[in-house]
This record gives sequence, structure tokens and C-alpha cells, in this order.
Amino acid sequence: MDMKKKPVTGMKDIMPDEMEIRNHVMNAIKEVYESYGFVNIETPAIEHIANLSGKLGGENEKLIFRILKRGEKLKLDQAKTAEDLVDSGLRYDLTLPLSRYYSNHANELPIPFKALQMGNVWRADRPQRGRFRQFVQCDIDIIGEAGCIAESELLLAGEELLYKVGFNGFTIRINDRRVLYAVSSYCGFEENERDEVLIILDKLDKIGIDGIRECLEEAGYKAEATNKCCELFENFLANGMDMDELASIVKDHIEEGVFANLKTIMKVFDDNKKGSSKIIFDPTLVRGMGYYTGPIFEISMEGFSGSVGGGGRYDEMIGRFTKSQVPACGFSIGFERIIMLLMESGRTFSKDVKRRAYLIDKKVSDDKMEEVVGKATEDRKEGMAVTICTMKKNKKFQKEMLKNQGYDDIVEVFAD
Amino acid sequence: MDMKKKPVTGMKDIMPDEMEIRNHVMNAIKEVYESYGFVNIETPAIEHIANLSGKLGGENEKLIFRILKRGEKLKLDQAKTAEDLVDSGLRYDLTLPLSRYYSNHANELPIPFKALQMGNVWRADRPQRGRFRQFVQCDIDIIGEAGCIAESELLLAGEELLYKVGFNGFTIRINDRRVLYAVSSYCGFEENERDEVLIILDKLDKIGIDGIRECLEEAGYKAEATNKCCELFENFLANGMDMDELASIVKDHIEEGVFANLKTIMKVFDDNKKGSSKIIFDPTLVRGMGYYTGPIFEISMEGFSGSVGGGGRYDEMIGRFTKSQVPACGFSIGFERIIMLLMESGRTFSKDVKRRAYLIDKKVSDDKMEEVVGKATEDRKEGMAVTICTMKKNKKFQKEMLKNQGYDDIVEVFAD
Repeated sequence: MDMKKKPVTGMKDIMPDEMEIRNHVMNAIKEVYESYGFVNIETPAIEHIANLSGKLGGENEKLIFRILKRGEKLKLDQAKTAEDLVDSGLRYDLTLPLSRYYSNHANELPIPFKALQMGNVWRADRPQRGRFRQFVQCDIDIIGEAGCIAESELLLAGEELLYKVGFNGFTIRINDRRVLYAVSSYCGFEENERDEVLIILDKLDKIGIDGIRECLEEAGYKAEATNKCCELFENFLANGMDMDELASIVKDHIEEGVFANLKTIMKVFDDNKKGSSKIIFDPTLVRGMGYYTGPIFEISMEGFSGSVGGGGRYDEMIGRFTKSQVPACGFSIGFERIIMLLMESGRTFSKDVKRRAYLIDKKVSDDKMEEVVGKATEDRKEGMAVTICTMKKNKKFQKEMLKNQGYDDIVEVFAD
Repeated sequence: MDMKKKPVTGMKDIMPDEMEIRNHVMNAIKEVYESYGFVNIETPAIEHIANLSGKLGGENEKLIFRILKRGEKLKLDQAKTAEDLVDSGLRYDLTLPLSRYYSNHANELPIPFKALQMGNVWRADRPQRGRFRQFVQCDIDIIGEAGCIAESELLLAGEELLYKVGFNGFTIRINDRRVLYAVSSYCGFEENERDEVLIILDKLDKIGIDGIRECLEEAGYKAEATNKCCELFENFLANGMDMDELASIVKDHIEEGVFANLKTIMKVFDDNKKGSSKIIFDPTLVRGMGYYTGPIFEISMEGFSGSVGGGGRYDEMIGRFTKSQVPACGFSIGFERIIMLLMESGRTFSKDVKRRAYLIDKKVSDDKMEEVVGKATEDRKEGMAVTICTMKKNKKFQKEMLKNQGYDDIVEVFAD
């Protein structure tokens, strides 16, 4: 077989310019998040196929890169379906591995446990511009904290980070899964219908209110519930919705304290944020993943469609591993989107360091070459970045390339 | 299927303490290597199966985690062998992806190109203590530099890095593939036998000279060549081998300049190294990978069996992709071994920062909680790391855990 030069479909080689930006943002992430008490952890890229297929990943479970069994365990002639051939797969997010990690190490970890995880995840999505099948996720999670101090800390840390890397004036939309459940119940949907109703409502920004109506009708729900729901959402879209107004509408369908909890999170954010971003209540926010149980939030930026971050509370997920409920709440920034926006902004993040290149002619003796290395060693001691290269035939081009790399100081060395 | 708490076989969750060490070493790597002019790049974890199976990976090719084809391309009923089911796999090293990367981007890259790559690689090795199936490799490579300035820069950068993270007094053993070829030819082995002879000689430290003799005899080589070879290697082991002496023995079997080249590399190293480490000529050094073509080197440390770094020149590998020869040379530190040694040393690398924890009693009002967040925001502005948590029933234990995490300053907050 011939060797292939291009990366596999949907994945990319990262060039030095982009790496500078990525390293800059990763350093900012560590610095800001560590000041909020988050500690770094790491989980393996490969997960048990049983965990990845446990229905916690929603649509992502269809996109798993599955890994073939090895050695004697691979029984090709006995395999009836692909499931018989695989024992593991690449993780599609960091939340599932974190939940496994926590359940595996709970005894060694402090309460609450504040985790920072950065790492690649893989999804065999249809390739499209700016979206790749391998990408970095960057999550902070607080495990073991049931109160809204968790949401508050996550949102403040996230805002401070984004502000630090140059983003300001964005909007955080916030809602609560329990508000959505109350709305569903108020409209007249049955409890066993609500998850599917939410999946339909999640498409609002893509298909509009008419599309929602169509989907609900097609799914065969009671006409009265469908009508009531569409009317309410039309109202949300046309006039916005005051939280107190909605609270009074659904008051018989919701436990006490849900709206007050949201208000506290919003107030803490407004009082402590670094920039001019705002937080607004958005009763149409659903977020895809099925595992959320409480407050959910998403960050959107002017002039940029799609989210640059989001998260929420998932109090029932870790229980899937531990069999006892552990409250948890997480926030994920859209790392790759932030990098893309920074790339497009044209800002550079190369370190402010003096750079010198020694260009050595081929005829230079070993003794003289050794002398040059000695000089380079001295330069580096003084904090310079130094490279030593053999002079190429096309010296002019070589020097241009070196200048592009920031080597303003080029020393040519010839034989005596 | 039940959810599984443990990581998949042979992989590990990384705890916060170890992450501190890893981050510390990674920062040192970037700092030192960047001062030598290396730039960061990244390649995808997944590679074409054709590239991974191209006979460049030696024994590692047997250990590939292979990835199942997806969608319509997966034809289970038509598959005769496992090869029909897979289109890609996880990379087993960083050198192969780098060669693909360079061939894909040569036009955009400076000459020479000095790359720094850190990332996970995967090998389905038999699990054993301290060896994992996912581990970080950290490589520097110089592509497009044929002269020994490449080897010199790699070795100096590697030594400075190891010195900076606390290792000193180690030994670099150096040899050249062409010296091994000359020895093979001098002993009387045929050219088409030499690669296999080298694979056998590579086992010297494991099976000793008697084991080598047995293997060579079993393989059926000429008795005279086997005898001559074992005699020479016995001599190496018993008395060491002066480079000039060996040079005169094999002078009819080697191109000019190979030994002089090694001498220059060794002298440059000795003149510019940071610590008390030494570099020695070791004619028994082979190194496993088949792709090496020139100088090869390996770092060993007193009291630690196995290598903590190594590398060499591989001038013919990139040509497998580009069809034209491009000189290249690389050096890889044993990242995971270094981390393990640092863990065992008991040194800590947590940042020297003031840490404060606010413990909030459950009865505290929202207003007062908001006030605490305000204080924390002020603390963080002053450079402190601050965490805010709800007070647990077992407050004593909670405070102990916080102290273990470095929170010496714990502020308890109660309702008024």
C-alpha cells in the first residue's frame, strides 16, 4: 500500500502558528481556572464500549470511533454484528469519562471536587468547514456541590477566561431543565412525552415555530398541548418572557425555589463579572444532552452563529456508576471555536523573545562549527532563542523564511 | 450493559498530584526546546492504516489499536480478514505522523524545520507495572539538515531539559548504524543478512553474549561470521572499545567520515552541556527501529534500568512519502519514565500561591452568599487561588481535605 500524505478524513495537522495560539489559550485556561480552585486531571482517550453506549451521550453515541478487539478475543468467524468485534472506542466527550473517573476515585478526592480537564475527543461527524472529527474539549466540573454556588463559580470562571483571551460583550443564556419540564406539563404533555418534546423544542432556532408545530403534530401529541406549547413559545420569541411572569404561569407544575435559584446565579454573575457580558433568562434554551437535571446555560457571541460555551447541572449521571446520587455541574468552553475566532482576528501570540540564527557555510571546519555552538550556548543563557543551520544554496530564500519565523538577527559564518 | 468504573485494560486515570508534575515538565520542555528554535506542531491521534502498516514501525506494528470502518464502508458479511474491517488506527509513535506531516506541508515549512511534538501514542502491549497502553511521547526533530549540527543540537537540548527538571550525571551512549553495518560486513555477514543480525545483536543486554551466539547459530549464519562477531562483542563488553581502534579494524568496510562525525558530536556535547553527564561511544548500541540510517543515541541513568531517552538519524523515512530523500534526525525523551522518577522522588511542584477556602453553612442567606463571592473575587484579583464550598456535615474531614490541597486559610461563614 502506498503511504498517504494527507491526514485521515476530517482531521487536521496543526501548524506552528496555530499551535502558538492554542498554547496561549491553554495557559490562560490553566491560570484562570486554577485561581478558582480547579485541579487538572486526565482520563484515557479510549473508553469501555459499554460506557460509551450507555445512553448518556445522546446523538453522539452514533458517532463513536470503535476499536477492534485484539488477539484471541477477536473472533471474526463468530461475529454476527459489529458489536461482537469491538470492546472499546474513543471518547466523544469528557463528561462521561469524568463521571467514571469520579466513581473510581471518590474515596481519594476532596468534596466538592473541582476538576479541570482538557483533551481530545472524537466524533465521526460528517466533515464540514471548521468542524473536525478530532477536537479539543475543555471542561470544568464541580462534583459534590448541590447548591447554586457551583453554577456561579463555573460561570464566573468561564467569563473571566473568555475576557482574558480577548472576548467581551457576549451573552449567557440561562434556563433550567425543571422550567422546561414545568412548561411541558403546563401545556398538557404527559411526563413520558416530555423528553421527546424537548428534543423537538431544541430545534427551534433551526426550524422556527412553524417547524416545531409540524414536528409536534407529526409525532401525534394531543392537539391542545401542541397548540398551547406553540402559543407560549411564539410569545417567548415575540416579546421575550419575564421570569416572574413565567413563574406565575407554571407555578402549579414546578417545585419551589427553581426560579429563585436562577435569579441568585444571575445576580452573582452580574456583580462579579470582569467585562460587559450579560446573562439573560431564556426559556427556549434546551441543550441537547439528555443528562441535564437543573440549570443549563449557553454562551453566544454577536456575529457568530452557534455556541462558544455551555454547560449545566447533571445530578443523576455519576449515580449511573456509583449507584448513589452525587450532584454535579459542568461548564465547557468551545475551545476550537475560540481558536478559530482568534486565528481569524489576526492577533499573534508569539513570545516576545530575541531570536538569532547562525547560518553556517558548508566549507566551515568542525572547529569553527564548534565555536559557533559555544556562542549559541552563551546566547541561550542570556534568554535568546537561537537556531543553527547549514547555509542552503538558496540563501536568500532561507533567510526570508528565518525572518518569517522571527529571526531578525542572522549571523552568517564562513570558512576562514 | 453495566457501566464500568475502572479505565480500560492497561490505561490509567491521572490524579491531580501527578498532573502537577506533568504540567511542570511540559512547561520546561516548551521553554527549553523553544530556546533551541523548535516550534510546536500537532498531528491527529488517528492515522491511515496504510501508513501504520508500512513497515516503518518495526515490532510496534503488531500492537496497533485498529479502528472499525463506519457506515456503508463496513461490510461485515464480505470481510475475509480483520484488514477488511479497518481503515485507520491509533498512532504508535510520533515519528511516522511527523514524516507524513512534513511531506504534506513541506512547501509551507522552513528549511531546516525544527519540530517539537508532544502527544499520546497507543500500543496494545502486554500490561505490566509502570507501562501503559496510552502514554505521552515527546519528540524533537530536525528535518532538512544533513550535517552533525542536527545531532549536536538535539543532544544539547535534551541534556539541558533533563538537567532543568532535576536529572544530572546520566550517560549518553552513541553509535552509528553505519558502524554496525561495517562490523557486520567485517565479520563476514552478507548485506542481506545484516538487518536480522542487528535485530539479534539488539538483544545483547537481555540475553548476553552466549544468547547472541545461540541466536546467530540457530539462524544458520556462517560459523566463521558468527564466531568473529561474538569474539568482537565479547571484547567490547570486556574491555570497552576505543573508537580509533574499531575504526582501524573496520576501515575497509565503512565510508569516510563516520567516526569523525561521531567525534564532533561528542566534543560539542562535552563543551556545551549544562551538567556533569557524559557521552560515550558504545559500539553495541543498536536501537530497535529499522528506519535509522546514521548516528543513534540513548540515555541511561544510574540505578534505573532501561532508557530515559534516545533517538537518531533517519534519512530515508520521509522519502517513503515524498519519493525524494530528505535528511532527518530526532530525539525523544522517555516522558513517562521521567514523570515516574519524579513521582518517586517525592518532590512537589504545586505553584507557590496563597490559597483560601470559604466554607459556607447551609443556613446562610443568598444575600450573604453573594457577599462571599464578592470577597472571593477581590481575593482572586490579588492573585490568590480561592474556592467556595458548602459546609458539609463532617466539617473536620472537609477541612482536612482542603488543607491537603494547600488551602491553609479557611474562612467559615455562618448565618447572621
